[in-house]
Amino acid sequence: MEAFSDGVFSIAATLLVLDIALRPPGGPLEQLRNAWPAYLGYVVSFLTIGAAWLAHSAMTDRLTGADTLLLRINLVLLLVIAFLPFPTKLVADALHNINGERVFVTVYGLTLLTIRLLGFALDAYARHENLYERGLGDDELRADRRDLWPTVAAYVTAIIIGLALPALAVALYFALAVFLVLPWRDLRLVFRRG
Amino acid sequence: MEAFSDGVFSIAATLLVLDIALRPPGGPLEQLRNAWPAYLGYVVSFLTIGAAWLAHSAMTDRLTGADTLLLRINLVLLLVIAFLPFPTKLVADALHNINGERVFVTVYGLTLLTIRLLGFALDAYARHENLYERGLGDDELRADRRDLWPTVAAYVTAIIIGLALPALAVALYFALAVFLVLPWRDLRLVFRRG
Amino acid sequence: MEAFSDGVFSIAATLLVLDIALRPPGGPLEQLRNAWPAYLGYVVSFLTIGAAWLAHSAMTDRLTGADTLLLRINLVLLLVIAFLPFPTKLVADALHNINGERVFVTVYGLTLLTIRLLGFALDAYARHENLYERGLGDDELRADRRDLWPTVAAYVTAIIIGLALPALAVALYFALAVFLVLPWRDLRLVFRRG
Amino acid sequence: MEAFSDGVFSIAATLLVLDIALRPPGGPLEQLRNAWPAYLGYVVSFLTIGAAWLAHSAMTDRLTGADTLLLRINLVLLLVIAFLPFPTKLVADALHNINGERVFVTVYGLTLLTIRLLGFALDAYARHENLYERGLGDDELRADRRDLWPTVAAYVTAIIIGLALPALAVALYFALAVFLVLPWRDLRLVFRRG
Repeated sequence: MEAFSDGVFSIAATLLVLDIALRPPGGPLEQLRNAWPAYLGYVVSFLTIGAAWLAHSAMTDRLTGADTLLLRINLVLLLVIAFLPFPTKLVADALHNINGERVFVTVYGLTLLTIRLLGFALDAYARHENLYERGLGDDELRADRRDLWPTVAAYVTAIIIGLALPALAVALYFALAVFLVLPWRDLRLVFRRG
Repeated sequence: MEAFSDGVFSIAATLLVLDIALRPPGGPLEQLRNAWPAYLGYVVSFLTIGAAWLAHSAMTDRLTGADTLLLRINLVLLLVIAFLPFPTKLVADALHNINGERVFVTVYGLTLLTIRLLGFALDAYARHENLYERGLGDDELRADRRDLWPTVAAYVTAIIIGLALPALAVALYFALAVFLVLPWRDLRLVFRRG
Repeated sequence: MEAFSDGVFSIAATLLVLDIALRPPGGPLEQLRNAWPAYLGYVVSFLTIGAAWLAHSAMTDRLTGADTLLLRINLVLLLVIAFLPFPTKLVADALHNINGERVFVTVYGLTLLTIRLLGFALDAYARHENLYERGLGDDELRADRRDLWPTVAAYVTAIIIGLALPALAVALYFALAVFLVLPWRDLRLVFRRG
Repeated sequence: MEAFSDGVFSIAATLLVLDIALRPPGGPLEQLRNAWPAYLGYVVSFLTIGAAWLAHSAMTDRLTGADTLLLRINLVLLLVIAFLPFPTKLVADALHNINGERVFVTVYGLTLLTIRLLGFALDAYARHENLYERGLGDDELRADRRDLWPTVAAYVTAIIIGLALPALAVALYFALAVFLVLPWRDLRLVFRRG
C-alpha cells in the first residue's frame, strides 16, 4: 500500500509544475509576473499534497495491517490527490478571468476539502477497526485529528467567500496549506528553547 | 520487480489527469460540465489500474521468488497499463464525437480486457510454477480468480454493446471497475456486523 | 541508489505514452491506423527500458555496496534513459516524413546503443572494483554480458541500414528489444519440459 | 520520508525531457541542432537534481530519525526541486531570444542556488539537532559541506554574469553541475592507482 500511495503523492505533486506557463502578452519579465496565479496554485497544491502525505505517512507508519476496505478508502483518496493538478490548472487560469474564476476557485476548494475529509475518513476507519499499534506516541496524528473540524470549517468558509471574492479564497487556501504543513507544537518548543 | 511495477502502476494512474481539459465552447461552468466524459474516463481508468494493482500487490506479497519468465509477463502487463492513458484520452474525446466514438470506445474496452487477462496470466503462471508460498490465506487472490470468467464475459459483452451504444459501454466499464475494486465479501461482513 | 533508479526507469517508461497521438487527416479509424509508428516506437522504447531495467535490477541485487563512482556512472545511464521519450517522439513523427526520418531514426538508434553500452559499463565497473557478492549464480548477468558484442554489432548495423532504409532500422530495433527482453535460455528449458 | 523524496527527485528529473522539442524553422537536422539550449538545460538540470539527490541520499542514510521540522524543510526542498522543470523550459527558450534570456537565465540560476542552499539547510538542521548517527565515515557529506560556500559564491557570480552574458552563465551552471556530481576525491584515488 505504501509504495503505490507514496508514488501517487509524489507524482501528483511533481506533475503540478506542468500547469505553470508564461502568461502573454508582454515582455519576458511581464509574462513571468503575470503567471503569479500559477505559482500560487503550485505552492498551495504542493503544500496540500505535502500535508496530506505527512498525515498519511504518520498513519501508515503506525498501522499493524491493512484490511481490504482500508485499501479501497485509500484508493479513493489517491484518486482525488491525483486529480488535483486539474483544478490547480483551472485556478492558474481563473485569476486572470473575471467570469471564470468563481466556478474554478470553487471546484479547487471543494477538491482540497475532499482531500482533507478523505484523509480523516482513512484515519477514522483505521481507528475504528483497531488497525493501529498501541503505545507509541502518535502526536502528529493526534494533532491532525484535533485540527480536523477547525480546518474543515475554514475550508467551507473559504469556499463560500470564493463565490464573491475568489482571489481572497485562494489566499485563504494558501494560509490553510501553510497551517497544515507547519508543526506548530514543535515550532513553539523550538522558539522556547531558542 | 515490485518497485518498478508499483512505479508504473502509480505513474500511469497519475498521468491520467493530463487527459482532462475544459471543453469549449461556452461559459466556464458549461465547459466544465461538457468535460464529463473526461472525468468518467479518468475514474474508470484510475479504478481499473487500482484494481489491477490490488490484485498484483496481493500476488507479489505471496510470491516466494520470481523467475525470469514471470518478470517478462509482468513487463507486458506493465506495457499495457502504461498505455492506458492513451485510450482514456480517446474516450474523453469520443463521447463528443458521434462518428469517432465507436472505434475509440472499442479500443478502450479491448485495453481494459487485455489488462484483466494479463493480470490473470501472471497469476496462472505463478501458480503453475509453484512460485507462491503455501498456507497463507490468499482470500483476495482466490476471489479475483473466481471473478475472472464472469468479468471477462462482462467486458466482451460491453465491447460488443459499444459497437452500437458506446456511451452505455463506458457506463458498463465504470460498473465493472467499481465491481473489481469493491471487496464484496468484506463489505458483506461489515454490513452483517453493523 | 535503487529507489531513484527504479523511479527513473518506471517514469521514463510510463511517459512514453505521452508521445502517442492520433494522426490526422482522415476518419477515426484511419487516424488510429496512421499512428502506427507511435505504437511501434512506444513498444520498442518500453521494451528497451524494460530490458535495461531487468539487467540493472539483476546487477543491483548482487551488489554488496556502491562506491561513489558507480553512483555517477549510474546517473549518466539514468540521464540517457530519461532522455529516451524525446527520440521516441521523433521516430513516431519520422516514419511519416520521408525527409526527416533518416536523421531522427539515427538519433533514436544512437540513444538505444548508448543505453546498451552504459548498462555494460556499469556492470564492467562493478566487476572491476569487486562490488559484486560472490557465489550466487548470476546467470542473467552472465547471459547479458555474453550478448553484449553481438547486440552492439546489431545496433551498429541497424543504425547504418537506417541511413538508407529507416523503417527497416526501426523494425530491427524492435527485433533487438524483443531479443533482449526474452529469456532465451529459460524459454528453451520451458519448451523442453513441455 | 525517503520514498516520497526519492519519488519527487526521480520524477522531476524525468519530467525534464518534456521540455525538449524540435526548434523550427529548417530541415530536420537543423531543427535538431537549433534545439541545443534544450539539451544543455536538460543536462544541467538533470545533473543538478542528481547531485542534490546524491547529497540527500548520503544524508538520509545516516539519519537516525526525522523530526517534524526536518520533514518540513525537506518538503520545501522538494517543492523547489519539483519546480525546476519550469525554469529549465524557460532557459531552453531563452537562448534563442535575446530580449528574454537575461530574465529567464536569472530565474534559472536563482532556482539552482535555492536548491543548493536548501540542501545545506537540511543538513545543517540535522547536524544541529543531532539527528545523525555517529562514528560512520560520512566523507561524501563532509566533502559536500566543504564545497558549500565556494559553490554558492560560484552560483552568485554566474547569476551576476548572466545579467550581461546569459549564455556564459548557463555554461557556468553546466560546469557547476558537473563539479557537484563528480567525486573529485575518488577520481584522484582512481587515477593514482591506475
